[in-house]
Amino acid sequence: MREHAPTITLLSDFGLTDEYVGVMKGVIASTCPQARVVDITHHIARHNVRQAAFVLNNAFRYFPKGTIHVSVVDPGVGGSRRIVCARVDGHFFLAPDNGLLTLVVRSGGLESLHAVTNEAYFLKPVSKTFHGRDIFAPVAARLGRGEKIEAFGKRLVLNDLCVLDIGEPGISDDGTLSGEIVWVDHFGNLVTNIDLDVFEGFVGPPPWDTVTIRLAASQVQGLQSSYEDVEPGRPLALFASRGLLEICVNQGDASSYFKATAGQRVSVIKP
Amino acid sequence: MREHAPTITLLSDFGLTDEYVGVMKGVIASTCPQARVVDITHHIARHNVRQAAFVLNNAFRYFPKGTIHVSVVDPGVGGSRRIVCARVDGHFFLAPDNGLLTLVVRSGGLESLHAVTNEAYFLKPVSKTFHGRDIFAPVAARLGRGEKIEAFGKRLVLNDLCVLDIGEPGISDDGTLSGEIVWVDHFGNLVTNIDLDVFEGFVGPPPWDTVTIRLAASQVQGLQSSYEDVEPGRPLALFASRGLLEICVNQGDASSYFKATAGQRVSVIKP
Amino acid sequence: MREHAPTITLLSDFGLTDEYVGVMKGVIASTCPQARVVDITHHIARHNVRQAAFVLNNAFRYFPKGTIHVSVVDPGVGGSRRIVCARVDGHFFLAPDNGLLTLVVRSGGLESLHAVTNEAYFLKPVSKTFHGRDIFAPVAARLGRGEKIEAFGKRLVLNDLCVLDIGEPGISDDGTLSGEIVWVDHFGNLVTNIDLDVFEGFVGPPPWDTVTIRLAASQVQGLQSSYEDVEPGRPLALFASRGLLEICVNQGDASSYFKATAGQRVSVIKP
Repeated sequence: MREHAPTITLLSDFGLTDEYVGVMKGVIASTCPQARVVDITHHIARHNVRQAAFVLNNAFRYFPKGTIHVSVVDPGVGGSRRIVCARVDGHFFLAPDNGLLTLVVRSGGLESLHAVTNEAYFLKPVSKTFHGRDIFAPVAARLGRGEKIEAFGKRLVLNDLCVLDIGEPGISDDGTLSGEIVWVDHFGNLVTNIDLDVFEGFVGPPPWDTVTIRLAASQVQGLQSSYEDVEPGRPLALFASRGLLEICVNQGDASSYFKATAGQRVSVIKP
Repeated sequence: MREHAPTITLLSDFGLTDEYVGVMKGVIASTCPQARVVDITHHIARHNVRQAAFVLNNAFRYFPKGTIHVSVVDPGVGGSRRIVCARVDGHFFLAPDNGLLTLVVRSGGLESLHAVTNEAYFLKPVSKTFHGRDIFAPVAARLGRGEKIEAFGKRLVLNDLCVLDIGEPGISDDGTLSGEIVWVDHFGNLVTNIDLDVFEGFVGPPPWDTVTIRLAASQVQGLQSSYEDVEPGRPLALFASRGLLEICVNQGDASSYFKATAGQRVSVIKP
Repeated sequence: MREHAPTITLLSDFGLTDEYVGVMKGVIASTCPQARVVDITHHIARHNVRQAAFVLNNAFRYFPKGTIHVSVVDPGVGGSRRIVCARVDGHFFLAPDNGLLTLVVRSGGLESLHAVTNEAYFLKPVSKTFHGRDIFAPVAARLGRGEKIEAFGKRLVLNDLCVLDIGEPGISDDGTLSGEIVWVDHFGNLVTNIDLDVFEGFVGPPPWDTVTIRLAASQVQGLQSSYEDVEPGRPLALFASRGLLEICVNQGDASSYFKATAGQRVSVIKP
């Protein structure tokens, strides 16, 4: 048994209109009432495993070591896809084996990986449509009570894990650094997959006043360090809180300003 | 006094934009700081007591015995409607006496029923528009601290309780089993009021490949056991996690596919 | 160190789609795992400090003394605006110094006010775009652990604080009491800035049957005490749960009924 109250995070595409999320918390409370349950988000676009992979990877490091991260974006629920439990950098992850852990495993050190197959830990009868309630929640609660990851199923190796082809930025034929918008946040900020290391490796050390960021027919000149470096309503590019290049509008909505959406190409052009 | 931290659930049509839900949690924290408060949902359609009755009944069993379920969908707030506290199968329920507990009481064993009238437990002055804050939250907190249900008001009997006419499926003149869509979930799944017992009583034991489910001018042939039994984008019928017949589209939205909404008739036709 | 688990509330314009709110809770859990974190709302309109000031002021009193209220509606994040920590009526407030505390300070007794500048309490590196994660959450967690407000930065005086020009109702040239709609709630109720004292000071003591409430070309005759005092679908005016004059429709949506929005003028006319 653990000494302290464990933290369990939930991430899903369930939305908050139905009783799904509440029911998962009820199941957790029934087995591990001392757990502190925190929602990362339940508004992943339906069945969008790629988005879930991105959001989970941005969030998990800010929780205490030992946190149990339960991610259920699971278009294959009830079918042949596996459920896995991974330990990465001291955090535990429960997810369908559909690529949801791609970025977590890419960025961190995989310490342990097991299939989740031991029905002794499941809620019976196990439905074919809501494994969040019947498998993920009770297994998370047992992890929270100190159950060893080995108890849930056989050991797997990294190569067993389903991995999504989530592109990393690369050099295009025209000599520009080419990435993409991977997320449009609530404020309309355009989050790219270009991180600071890749950026600096391409354009060299600052100052970056003469670097151009191109987005379809539009472009932003230079990098800023904060929103206020430009007038309200004006666009800018900066490295924001995720450590990724973002295209924003000061006190505005870059998504509307540029009519841009996730998946769109973003190029970095050297002076 | 209880030994353990009580669980209090909240269900309402308050939405999450205003401060209403946060204020209820503040009132609970002021009286019973040890309570674990879990949201079932606050996105019941405004004033839709029928929806609330359905969602509450689907959710409550997954919480630990002793949980206090506070449900506030209350178009008659401040008027002549009563507030009641019920104990059903070891769970406590606080709700306006407007039919919200219809399905909970129909499905479970009513162990105790009291009016909530003892103003000693209310927040003063009691507003006429926000009993969630002034009555439901403080009474729930006192229940959470171990107050007896008898303290809140006089004993009532089952016949005193307002009950909604929530139809159960029946045999139509044309010899089909006739139910209705009672809920369209976040994924667009069409949840009916036809449970497995009623279904099997009508069509007999499986296999059910030749049973037809009719929805307006459309129909689905046979029952599946999981989404993956059909191709992505194709419709299917199955008994899903609530134990009810649902009409779904694998990795899609049945509500859009069939242009269907709650209240619409669903028929089961024997081969 | 505090003896009891502290309560920390969160209010923001972050929405619930991104990982922002979850990440703040992760940071809090890392430093002050015993904290009870309660969301007031994360659906303040983007960058609308005025709305945030209103909602925070309506909510905070319902939490226990000692609660730490973290409010992050912060269009100037990363720029020159200050962050402040205030103690008002035994409650703690962390907010950008952009007017968000205007109504809290106006209505309550300011007991202490400090700048938040001591980087020893911040998450490093401090981003320029997400002070909720890097400053507000870790400082709130340290407050929750019992750190003194003096530790975070130099003492300020009330006059140092940025205050919004949030109008109070006044007497117009035409002899009416003139206020405005400051909030449209989830139910479509129109909440004005006219409180009971101001109202009674203008029209005199009840009965108020002959008072007229005018809203653009429409008007409501008399004040009611609860929704049920009029037929379903009919408009009414009453003093509702915030102690403010509200214009409502019984079981309906006054915002649609009157085609009214926040900012619109509301007049009280004496008989």
